Amino acid sequence: MRIVVLAGGIGGARFLRGLKTAAPDADITVIGNTGDDIHLFGLKVCPDLDTVMYTLGGGINEEQGWGRTDETFRVKEELAAYGVGPEWFGLGDRDFATHIVRTQMMGAGYPLSAVTEALCDRWQPGVRLLPMTDDRVETHVAIEEDGEKKAVHFQEYWVRLRASVPAHAVVPVGAEQAKPAPGVLEAIGAADVILFPPSNPVVSVGTILAIPGIREAIAEAGAPVVGLSPIVGDAPVRGMADKVLAAVGVESTASAVAAHYGMGLLDGWLVDTVDAEKAAEVEAAGIRCRAVPLMMTDLEATAAMAREALTLAEEVRA
Amino acid sequence: MRIVVLAGGIGGARFLRGLKTAAPDADITVIGNTGDDIHLFGLKVCPDLDTVMYTLGGGINEEQGWGRTDETFRVKEELAAYGVGPEWFGLGDRDFATHIVRTQMMGAGYPLSAVTEALCDRWQPGVRLLPMTDDRVETHVAIEEDGEKKAVHFQEYWVRLRASVPAHAVVPVGAEQAKPAPGVLEAIGAADVILFPPSNPVVSVGTILAIPGIREAIAEAGAPVVGLSPIVGDAPVRGMADKVLAAVGVESTASAVAAHYGMGLLDGWLVDTVDAEKAAEVEAAGIRCRAVPLMMTDLEATAAMAREALTLAEEVRA
Repeated sequence: MRIVVLAGGIGGARFLRGLKTAAPDADITVIGNTGDDIHLFGLKVCPDLDTVMYTLGGGINEEQGWGRTDETFRVKEELAAYGVGPEWFGLGDRDFATHIVRTQMMGAGYPLSAVTEALCDRWQPGVRLLPMTDDRVETHVAIEEDGEKKAVHFQEYWVRLRASVPAHAVVPVGAEQAKPAPGVLEAIGAADVILFPPSNPVVSVGTILAIPGIREAIAEAGAPVVGLSPIVGDAPVRGMADKVLAAVGVESTASAVAAHYGMGLLDGWLVDTVDAEKAAEVEAAGIRCRAVPLMMTDLEATAAMAREALTLAEEVRA
Repeated sequence: MRIVVLAGGIGGARFLRGLKTAAPDADITVIGNTGDDIHLFGLKVCPDLDTVMYTLGGGINEEQGWGRTDETFRVKEELAAYGVGPEWFGLGDRDFATHIVRTQMMGAGYPLSAVTEALCDRWQPGVRLLPMTDDRVETHVAIEEDGEKKAVHFQEYWVRLRASVPAHAVVPVGAEQAKPAPGVLEAIGAADVILFPPSNPVVSVGTILAIPGIREAIAEAGAPVVGLSPIVGDAPVRGMADKVLAAVGVESTASAVAAHYGMGLLDGWLVDTVDAEKAAEVEAAGIRCRAVPLMMTDLEATAAMAREALTLAEEVRA
């Protein structure tokens, strides 16, 4: 079975771990969000790709969900001693090595997709990890801070500001001119199932869908498209997705997110059991919906979610 | 008193520490060799500039003479886990930060001289540290290894091969097209004394002199030019200078090095007391020569050497 998954960072990576357990023999292609990518200290940092790679490759800091396990911060301390920031982005020494290798390869002319493949040679994530695009796309957030209207990089909004001010707009700068990375459209076209994990629907999955050609390829693919709600009981399971949903005028409910993805795209949608009463609303919009436990509390609970998604996909297909 | 010093790495840095003790009120400009510079992992590494900066700024690993004190190697271990080398160059985590800052600034368009000044803002070395040039110069060494003739970067010859094979030629690639960095010729022109520390006469001081304009400015400067022999008892005090001296056809003796620099350049030359019998030979070549202890065993011994050099400069001037 060929499964394509559109993944953001922590939520996507954890879901993928469950999916690998649920479907150990599946051929899984992950299309990773690169809108979070940022240049820090002259280095190219790809938070979402790395979170997937480290999580599936056994190198993740399990507790925080991102970054490397057993990490130290000598380089960052020295950079601060030079007065070089930002200090709000916590790059560890082991993590730095990944960004150094990536930046060196990109400087030598390799596209991000080739670099990601080379990094995965080490991590062996057990999936094929593709960036959504080899072109530069950066998600910017329009905010007002200290009375001043401005746009900041998504990472600055998310990490430095902890989404503490309203997001007036979320713009994937460069997306319109970007092309899907090699293999992305082919994987979608050949998929038996396409899954949207409980990732951020705006800045993760939404950014991937903003690359011209990807949304169309998914809509036209013969495979069932099933998503899992990142909103449980009208609040994000983790992170601050409600802040960026508000920016695009979408309510923080499991049904509103389904409607946001839209009937033309989604065939099936899983909501949490606490949102069971919303299933009828989703189905009325033409999307098959089931209410199942959606908390990724451990690997088995996550694998069960993945099984439910695959089961719903089979129902939709039949 | 304005003193200009042409410095390589460890020997130059240690001599400078003695000079600062010997002449605490002097205005010291250091013209640093950048022929050792190398791009590693996509980062610009300047071994000699950093050794001067760390030594005078109190950050040096005293025992090995280069690199940072209290160093760890997490980044390098991770790079090796990615299969990315070279493994023979020992970059520590704290040291990496320096190269990251430098590379970021150069990527933003700053010349090496401006970057060096910015890095020295932190280290406060107590001297004005100028790279010999802002242009790229790389010392390559022609060797024969496993029956194959090839040219390797000086660092590869020095660090990986430990100068274990003969050097057939030493070429400062790019030197002919390079221009002295801003401030270099002005500092030489305004100097009261110009010193050649006991640095490598070929790959350190020699490379600096290979930048068109620098040798001429020193020869034409009104100030006395005094050097200290890095060869004591017909062997280098440290390092493997004899290997590269052989490549340029110069004997490893204190007098041969003086003759190599030449009468048109040097006004005075200090040899070690064990080489006292060579002083006459040097003087016969028109260079004032004194035999004094030249082992930089501690700060006081080094300061005494610096005092002897300054005294000889005064003799020459008078």
